[in-house]
Amino acid sequence: MISKQQISEIISKYDQENLAIATVCSHSSLQIFDGARKEGLKTIGICVGQPPRFYDAFPKAKPDEYIVVESYSDIPKITQELVEKNAIIIPHGSFVEYMGAKNFAELPVPTFGNREVLEWESDREKEREWLEGAGIHMPGNVPDPKDINSPVMVKYYGAKGGRGFFIAKTYEEFLENIDPNEKFTIQEFILGTRYYLHYFYSPLENEGYKLSEGTLEMLSMDRRVESNADEIFRLGSPRELEEAGIHPTYVVTGNVPLVARESLLPLIFSLGEKVVEESIKLFGGMVGPFCLETVFTDKLEIKVFEISARIVAGTNFYISGSPYADLVESDLSTGKRIAKEIKLAKDMGQLDKILS
Amino acid sequence: MISKQQISEIISKYDQENLAIATVCSHSSLQIFDGARKEGLKTIGICVGQPPRFYDAFPKAKPDEYIVVESYSDIPKITQELVEKNAIIIPHGSFVEYMGAKNFAELPVPTFGNREVLEWESDREKEREWLEGAGIHMPGNVPDPKDINSPVMVKYYGAKGGRGFFIAKTYEEFLENIDPNEKFTIQEFILGTRYYLHYFYSPLENEGYKLSEGTLEMLSMDRRVESNADEIFRLGSPRELEEAGIHPTYVVTGNVPLVARESLLPLIFSLGEKVVEESIKLFGGMVGPFCLETVFTDKLEIKVFEISARIVAGTNFYISGSPYADLVESDLSTGKRIAKEIKLAKDMGQLDKILS
Amino acid sequence: MISKQQISEIISKYDQENLAIATVCSHSSLQIFDGARKEGLKTIGICVGQPPRFYDAFPKAKPDEYIVVESYSDIPKITQELVEKNAIIIPHGSFVEYMGAKNFAELPVPTFGNREVLEWESDREKEREWLEGAGIHMPGNVPDPKDINSPVMVKYYGAKGGRGFFIAKTYEEFLENIDPNEKFTIQEFILGTRYYLHYFYSPLENEGYKLSEGTLEMLSMDRRVESNADEIFRLGSPRELEEAGIHPTYVVTGNVPLVARESLLPLIFSLGEKVVEESIKLFGGMVGPFCLETVFTDKLEIKVFEISARIVAGTNFYISGSPYADLVESDLSTGKRIAKEIKLAKDMGQLDKILS
Repeated sequence: MISKQQISEIISKYDQENLAIATVCSHSSLQIFDGARKEGLKTIGICVGQPPRFYDAFPKAKPDEYIVVESYSDIPKITQELVEKNAIIIPHGSFVEYMGAKNFAELPVPTFGNREVLEWESDREKEREWLEGAGIHMPGNVPDPKDINSPVMVKYYGAKGGRGFFIAKTYEEFLENIDPNEKFTIQEFILGTRYYLHYFYSPLENEGYKLSEGTLEMLSMDRRVESNADEIFRLGSPRELEEAGIHPTYVVTGNVPLVARESLLPLIFSLGEKVVEESIKLFGGMVGPFCLETVFTDKLEIKVFEISARIVAGTNFYISGSPYADLVESDLSTGKRIAKEIKLAKDMGQLDKILS
Repeated sequence: MISKQQISEIISKYDQENLAIATVCSHSSLQIFDGARKEGLKTIGICVGQPPRFYDAFPKAKPDEYIVVESYSDIPKITQELVEKNAIIIPHGSFVEYMGAKNFAELPVPTFGNREVLEWESDREKEREWLEGAGIHMPGNVPDPKDINSPVMVKYYGAKGGRGFFIAKTYEEFLENIDPNEKFTIQEFILGTRYYLHYFYSPLENEGYKLSEGTLEMLSMDRRVESNADEIFRLGSPRELEEAGIHPTYVVTGNVPLVARESLLPLIFSLGEKVVEESIKLFGGMVGPFCLETVFTDKLEIKVFEISARIVAGTNFYISGSPYADLVESDLSTGKRIAKEIKLAKDMGQLDKILS
Repeated sequence: MISKQQISEIISKYDQENLAIATVCSHSSLQIFDGARKEGLKTIGICVGQPPRFYDAFPKAKPDEYIVVESYSDIPKITQELVEKNAIIIPHGSFVEYMGAKNFAELPVPTFGNREVLEWESDREKEREWLEGAGIHMPGNVPDPKDINSPVMVKYYGAKGGRGFFIAKTYEEFLENIDPNEKFTIQEFILGTRYYLHYFYSPLENEGYKLSEGTLEMLSMDRRVESNADEIFRLGSPRELEEAGIHPTYVVTGNVPLVARESLLPLIFSLGEKVVEESIKLFGGMVGPFCLETVFTDKLEIKVFEISARIVAGTNFYISGSPYADLVESDLSTGKRIAKEIKLAKDMGQLDKILS
């Protein structure tokens, strides 16, 4: 991984009055560009082949300029161009996925957030070490499928968008469905309702919900729309579908907005706080947006089944604010919050704290 | 219950140019405080032990000051402090639940709304008398479980958040699930989709949708997210779950926003109108926000299964307006609407009409 | 159908500085009136019997004046009054349904959009010819019910709001449910999640996502709430319900807002583009809002099962903007977009292009 030192040197040569943010034209780029523009930062869209036409329909989110690459794995080749333009990379989920984690780790361009989080987030065992170390309740792990004696969710490593995940209630059901060529984890299936909680951690000195260093915000939440699991019940129950050879899948196609019971906010903040504090201990701390993927049970407990340590697409509904962000300031998206953080760090002379 | 007369005397001594609103820090307090501040009213958060930290993350909704109690049942002890601060209590669902209905009824502090509604709302039989007296269609009551011959919902008295409710299609299924130690009602299960309709009734003379006295608004609507009923179908059908000894529950964890077919608005307003008019006859009228908990059937009929005679948490999504409230004025939450009502009544010299 | 020529003559006599928009008081009239007022156009509400009282609760959407008819089939009788008021009809789904397609086709009042689309949209076979001709993927047609060998959706012609639609997995299930007196189509049942995509096509020369002529926008999307299909799983699986003689129905009662994966936007725009381009070839082009009713599969394909060639009620949530429209301009509803189009066409001297 590129060192903090190298990044600091690059930043020290930047024209800080002409910072630009850059990201790949996908995932949550509309709000990243829109938010940057609202804060007066320049915007660079990185795209393959040619600029996507859909930005023409969203003038407020159209980047100031494009850098076209032949394939995302070519992003390292545009390093110099990005640095010349005083660019700060905003990595979203697709950014890392498209260019590859290794390429991303080495990219010698200042990047929003702490790149060391990648290693903790992309490995399900390290992720569990982090979250459980923080005192977070996760669905139990079932190391040996023979021990399945209640509903479990079987997940493949690196499965994109939940394709191939399946629920099993017994070892027999596990055997019927498992792909023996894939590495998997088996998690207790938590009965409840899914909430994806969108936090923002700033390591800067500021007003707000204070942690040991910096502040924590919770800007919005969503529920992912999963195809075909969300509507498959119209066709049959799990057993009826099984008989017909039809299998539910969990690919995310979009997001529905929602709010949580207000009485759960203390718990929601406490979960975010624990995760951040543990991240500071483990690897110097996450920075910026992160998402806890949770299930709220009927005991009003919150189980966390995963963490995303960057902006998630579930924030896309809230491009002009949310029922939570509106209580911070009007018209605040996660994309705009990122731009504000960059400006604030610049003004405080602390860009090093939020870039890596 | 404290008399209208006593409350009037307290109000008459208030410094009406320095009114404050006070509520318990939970449920819908973010929008109540945010709405009051937007209207220039002071805000007092009542909390147990210490001020909740989560307000630090939502500066616009942070109350101007806190009154800390040891337990919610101690709220009567802060009566004098509240009165000295010219406080008007905004009771939300948790407020009444936390301090107890009896304590609430006697609290000698001016309270937004008509406290007499409590008695009609908290007893399922009186609630039915009220709603059916108003000509509202409710799910049929099944007094004797032996008469169950179509799907029914069995509800326990005072069950918090729907825990323990269950669906039965036969007397046998009823017997299998019933807790013999609990008082219950059995309601016909209405097939349809749930809508929670957020109304506001003002007894003041004003422009708008006029009733025999005052005006009616419909500010927003939501669908409650119920754990674990909303997602349990992923695991199995009701019968498959029954076999596995797993039971659906109906605890509310949050709310999803939605809109209704516009052609249903005349019916929606007529339902609200009937309920208010009947409340005027029965006990001098509800005041302020109320919610009809309904099912819209595929015949486009609306069945009302419950009423909440105060602000409901389903309004929390709409802190900066809703598809309906935006047509009244911009940035209008139910919390802000309450603050506006207080200011209007004060300006008209009619605080007596909206406080009790 | 009334000729373009006749409409042009009427428009040429209009006082174009005093245009009014007129529509039937239902469906999406709140946003149509609100949007027109925001753009400074006069508004006329057409209603049966008497003005609906619910507008009194929504002052921003209350039309400037009403024209009362005895029944919607009497709308042709108010032609002269509408023309004298320089009215442009905004046809929504209920408008056409209430007054009848034939009456609508002949109405000698300038109407927003191209009335020729009706013939292509109201006949399921011509609709398929249009969409498949455009290269759109639709659910497969099963001409002979004996050929049912995977899940299908059986739809009746002209069924209002989905009443009577049913799913069958076999020919036997088809026979059990079919109403022999109704004309039906049988469509492959696509497993996935439903998205209703709200586009706007302007034939005018302008900035934006350019087509062969004019520009395309995608302003919002929703998921329809269907009674009782959306919640019937609480009672039983399809087979369990079948045994109990209970049938799911698909009547739309409202709409839930959502967003789609950003990586699907290029495909979403390409679908809209193909449909518009084909409409230009077939009948001179749709104009204004249209909706593709789709299913997103877990392969991230989009299947289109229907098109609505006018404003749909799913846009009603977005009366003050949407996560997409906000990137065009703030406070932009589809209703307001229609008003802007009329004003722009007037300013360009091209009302002929958008009225028929």
